Amino acid sequence: MKVFEKVDAVIVKTPDASFFYFTGLEGTWESSYAIVFPDAVEVVAPPLERGRAHFYTSRREMEALLKELATAEKIGFNSRGLSHADYLYLKKIIGGKWIDVGKEIMEARVVKRKSEVALIRRACRETKRIMESLSMEGKSEAEVAAEAEYEMRKRGMKAAFDTIVAFGKNSSSPHHTAGKKRYATPAILDMGARYRNYCSDITRTFVERRGRKIYEIVEEALNIAIDEMMEGVKASEVVKKVEDFLKKHGHGMRHSLGHSIGIEVHDGFSLSSASNFILKENMVFAVEPAIYTAGMGVRIEEDVIVKKGKAEIIR
Amino acid sequence: MKVFEKVDAVIVKTPDASFFYFTGLEGTWESSYAIVFPDAVEVVAPPLERGRAHFYTSRREMEALLKELATAEKIGFNSRGLSHADYLYLKKIIGGKWIDVGKEIMEARVVKRKSEVALIRRACRETKRIMESLSMEGKSEAEVAAEAEYEMRKRGMKAAFDTIVAFGKNSSSPHHTAGKKRYATPAILDMGARYRNYCSDITRTFVERRGRKIYEIVEEALNIAIDEMMEGVKASEVVKKVEDFLKKHGHGMRHSLGHSIGIEVHDGFSLSSASNFILKENMVFAVEPAIYTAGMGVRIEEDVIVKKGKAEIIR
Repeated sequence: MKVFEKVDAVIVKTPDASFFYFTGLEGTWESSYAIVFPDAVEVVAPPLERGRAHFYTSRREMEALLKELATAEKIGFNSRGLSHADYLYLKKIIGGKWIDVGKEIMEARVVKRKSEVALIRRACRETKRIMESLSMEGKSEAEVAAEAEYEMRKRGMKAAFDTIVAFGKNSSSPHHTAGKKRYATPAILDMGARYRNYCSDITRTFVERRGRKIYEIVEEALNIAIDEMMEGVKASEVVKKVEDFLKKHGHGMRHSLGHSIGIEVHDGFSLSSASNFILKENMVFAVEPAIYTAGMGVRIEEDVIVKKGKAEIIR
Repeated sequence: MKVFEKVDAVIVKTPDASFFYFTGLEGTWESSYAIVFPDAVEVVAPPLERGRAHFYTSRREMEALLKELATAEKIGFNSRGLSHADYLYLKKIIGGKWIDVGKEIMEARVVKRKSEVALIRRACRETKRIMESLSMEGKSEAEVAAEAEYEMRKRGMKAAFDTIVAFGKNSSSPHHTAGKKRYATPAILDMGARYRNYCSDITRTFVERRGRKIYEIVEEALNIAIDEMMEGVKASEVVKKVEDFLKKHGHGMRHSLGHSIGIEVHDGFSLSSASNFILKENMVFAVEPAIYTAGMGVRIEEDVIVKKGKAEIIR
């Protein structure tokens, strides 16, 4: 990993999701630390958790463990995942030279290992199965969200984020909170499951005649995005193609075209006109073109694996 | 508020829960800022959210808005709620003298306003109603957790944290993840709902003859805690009384006696032997004495409002 060209060890503290990336652990792991070396990972945690870790029962024990285990000259950390207070505190008790490797960690995480792709695939498949089994007619947004999350829980997963259910006019708000409104079209269902640390993020919009035309434009925008996504292509170029297409039909994007998914629903990279990174094999993105007007919204979102050739929609 | 004795304005960024404390807003509010003055609050947010805010559609617009609105010499921030990267970035674009007021904000949040107490009360009542209506026999831990969260969702709330259901031997692990194990005693159900930003956190343990004796000790520990909790009392003294009682029966605490609740499930203050703060009227705590042995655990948790006289268990 590129990270270890810059530092000898990396310290990560929960809730930074990189803790789970480096340790492979599942659960909450409150106030826990991972000390990551090129060939080993040590975990320091309070005794509430179960698993391989050095457990501390007091602040003094915690500090002693961190000092003992973090034996490195150059210590890497993620400045976006560590609070300013923790940064000052850890730097003081551990010493050494602290180097921000947040960017390098993110870049490593964005290209998925085979085992990670398998877990995301599983989360996506289970999510699609649930989406197909849900009936929405006659129900309120909150009821549909409750049922969706109940089904995830029953399958041993949990909601990766608050399920968005937006009926009728509410569909025009990308982050609508599911409420009392009863089923009406357009009906947006945007949900994701977390299966053993890995997330899916999928959206369907159900329209009637009124929304059909907008739906077809959004669907075509999704096809364009997927056709363009391929190892070696600049992300912003994909976005530009989609934006040009939408503009031709008199529409613009109100949010980014998508984002990488993984341990986090927004796992590092965003697909926007400012994204000047190059797509690589085994990056996994939620691609979510959408059109919002004053009275309605249509969004279609698929999870997509970048390949050397044509990208694969996870089905 | 004491905060404004030290600074002219406070900047808070989501996901720091103080954003919701100062603005009263509900929802996700990704990448949003609150600029808090003694008599006004300005919100800067991307256009995904609905509500009163200055919306930005680019980084440049965001920076311009922050610079324009954060017109103060001395700017307060919460070093525990802001990432190191955000701290460096905001300080650079906004300028001024940055002062850590995290402690003062926490101390303000810990004493609840009347409206906050009302919302916590509602969350507790709804949670207790759900707990009473759930039947666990014959079901797996994951099924019970799924049903509990479904009921919260149906009532327009959501789980404040992953519902803990631990049957039989699993009860000996304080942070057990609900799994496939079928109902057995001791059966721990530890759940909390978020009602309009405010949390409950309640635990019940169901025992049969085998666990009866331990149950009675834990119940008595809870009574001792509540009898001791009162405005003017040092928190550590309450904890000491409970610890002494448990020690007399050959047991110790494996986690703290409790924690304040509010917008966060762990809302700032912890009840441990190191807690040298003084209890004040309208602090609200989840009090959760517990005994864990190798083969079983018993935990009882009530949410409690500190009063001038005897503390009140929220029923």
